[in-house]
Amino acid sequence: MGGDLGPAAVVEGVDIAVRRRGGLRCLLHGKRDEIEPILARFPAARDASEIRDAETFVTMDDKPSEALRRSRGSSMWNAIQAVKAGEADVAMSAGNTGALMAISKVILRMKPNVHRPAIVASWPTPRGFSAVLDVGANIECTPTQLVEFAILGEAFSRAVHGIERPTVGLLNIGAEELKGNSMVQEAAQLMRAAHLDLDYYGYVEGDDISMGTVDVVVTDGFTGNVALKTAEGTARLVGRFVREEFTSTFRNRLSAFLSRDVLRGLRSRMDPRSANGGVLLGMNGIVVKSHGSADGEGFATALRVAAGMAESNFLSEIEHNLHRLARMSDAAAEQAAE
Amino acid sequence: MGGDLGPAAVVEGVDIAVRRRGGLRCLLHGKRDEIEPILARFPAARDASEIRDAETFVTMDDKPSEALRRSRGSSMWNAIQAVKAGEADVAMSAGNTGALMAISKVILRMKPNVHRPAIVASWPTPRGFSAVLDVGANIECTPTQLVEFAILGEAFSRAVHGIERPTVGLLNIGAEELKGNSMVQEAAQLMRAAHLDLDYYGYVEGDDISMGTVDVVVTDGFTGNVALKTAEGTARLVGRFVREEFTSTFRNRLSAFLSRDVLRGLRSRMDPRSANGGVLLGMNGIVVKSHGSADGEGFATALRVAAGMAESNFLSEIEHNLHRLARMSDAAAEQAAE
Repeated sequence: MGGDLGPAAVVEGVDIAVRRRGGLRCLLHGKRDEIEPILARFPAARDASEIRDAETFVTMDDKPSEALRRSRGSSMWNAIQAVKAGEADVAMSAGNTGALMAISKVILRMKPNVHRPAIVASWPTPRGFSAVLDVGANIECTPTQLVEFAILGEAFSRAVHGIERPTVGLLNIGAEELKGNSMVQEAAQLMRAAHLDLDYYGYVEGDDISMGTVDVVVTDGFTGNVALKTAEGTARLVGRFVREEFTSTFRNRLSAFLSRDVLRGLRSRMDPRSANGGVLLGMNGIVVKSHGSADGEGFATALRVAAGMAESNFLSEIEHNLHRLARMSDAAAEQAAE
Repeated sequence: MGGDLGPAAVVEGVDIAVRRRGGLRCLLHGKRDEIEPILARFPAARDASEIRDAETFVTMDDKPSEALRRSRGSSMWNAIQAVKAGEADVAMSAGNTGALMAISKVILRMKPNVHRPAIVASWPTPRGFSAVLDVGANIECTPTQLVEFAILGEAFSRAVHGIERPTVGLLNIGAEELKGNSMVQEAAQLMRAAHLDLDYYGYVEGDDISMGTVDVVVTDGFTGNVALKTAEGTARLVGRFVREEFTSTFRNRLSAFLSRDVLRGLRSRMDPRSANGGVLLGMNGIVVKSHGSADGEGFATALRVAAGMAESNFLSEIEHNLHRLARMSDAAAEQAAE
């Protein structure tokens, strides 16, 4: 039911995703009366879906705490509950991010030694994709949380991006040791601790993200969200410059016509919809968040991410990685005892 | 003497800038023995410059506190001292940012009611440029400092970008009131206080910067620096995509040849060197920081920014704006007394 465009974008997204990839099946949680007539227009989606009627739904404006109180039996609640019950492999929503996180936490529970979920984005680089987290779940973070993000992101990078030994960088504002705020500096000390067994690269700066300097970029949710949206805005501005240059004179319009295949390839490569789908990490179950403004195409991309997560060995990777976090907290406890 | 490329890039930059714009005169502070032979190769720069011999210089690796202690008589110190003495209108450096700030503060002193300098960047948008600050001078900020940045940035936008009544936005991770960290939320309350007489727009997100939603974007130096570098990295990645698409097949290379004028226009529009030059605001005098990695072309751009600042009415604009800050701190004092 969620997202700025409501159920229509979701159903269209399912239709696109199902036609592109066989074997996908969806439970559509929401108001049957609203969903059924839309589904009738999309035969592929209809054949692959089952509606699960829900009386209520969380709105985009609900505060997370309020949403949580009133959410039992809502479409969002039921979607996550289906993961817990083993009926679904992944829950997906384009709705209220804060509510999605709060409800997921309550139903799925955090993995041991992980304090809060993080949202990871797959960021395009010249070499493929980097995992960037957190991109918006946690506004204020502790150094320990940043280490948890590193552990989660490393498992994600291995399972989803197929990188055997991912390198991990901490986002900072200068490569020199003396720079950065105290939170980042403390996190760097923890990361270097050998028992974590992470391939810790060190600090990276904003321009390193798109350059793909490391496979996993760790940052707090405030900085990560600003970085992600700044990159989206910049890509859109550059796209606009390209359009303006190719349409400014008759001669340039002719060039555009002669280059139409290249420009089409470029457009699809820069389509922000092709990078939709943030994955909530750290809980006993997978939840994927689509952009609220996603249309059918964007939602289909997020569904592809969700299906990829379900088929990956992320959950076993994470089990392995979490042993390291346990070792870290054991070491901290020992130190405190001494 | 500063910057990754040393005096050669500076002299070449002066040469380019002087040839583009008459009436520019430069004092080159540094080791005469090193500068003189370089200057001999650039006649335009030689005619417009005067070397001021300095025995020592601050290196890129010096910690700001150490640099400050040992900096008296260094090239950086002397350049800023020349502004204080009225010999120069602007001081410019491609050297160590932290040292530049620390030395500037000591020599030029802060304007009344401004606590620390901020670095402002002119960020390209579809409508021209937005002023974004702080982009790296202050890693941790208070809400009051963010308001000071707003006041400084507004005067800058009016004086340098020529916007009569600039709108001001606070960088955050969601447009809704309930989002954002406590620092940003407190700053928003202060900004809304009527006696500031600011055209406060409200929160903006990362993608709003490149869209030019507001004329002045206010943020702390950590977030601002990450955003600026992320945008640079993204623009570079997109440029790479354009190059790759236009060279991937013979047909596409032919398209590139037929579109060479458009692509040349695009390249110059996306040249990161055309956005070089951060201005340090808040002191009794103007200091401009060039990227450490700037080559001659980049340094020339920063010199253009510096010359523009010198000719602008920024210093009188700022006097006017500072009265508002004084009113704010008076109001705060009254409240405290009550």
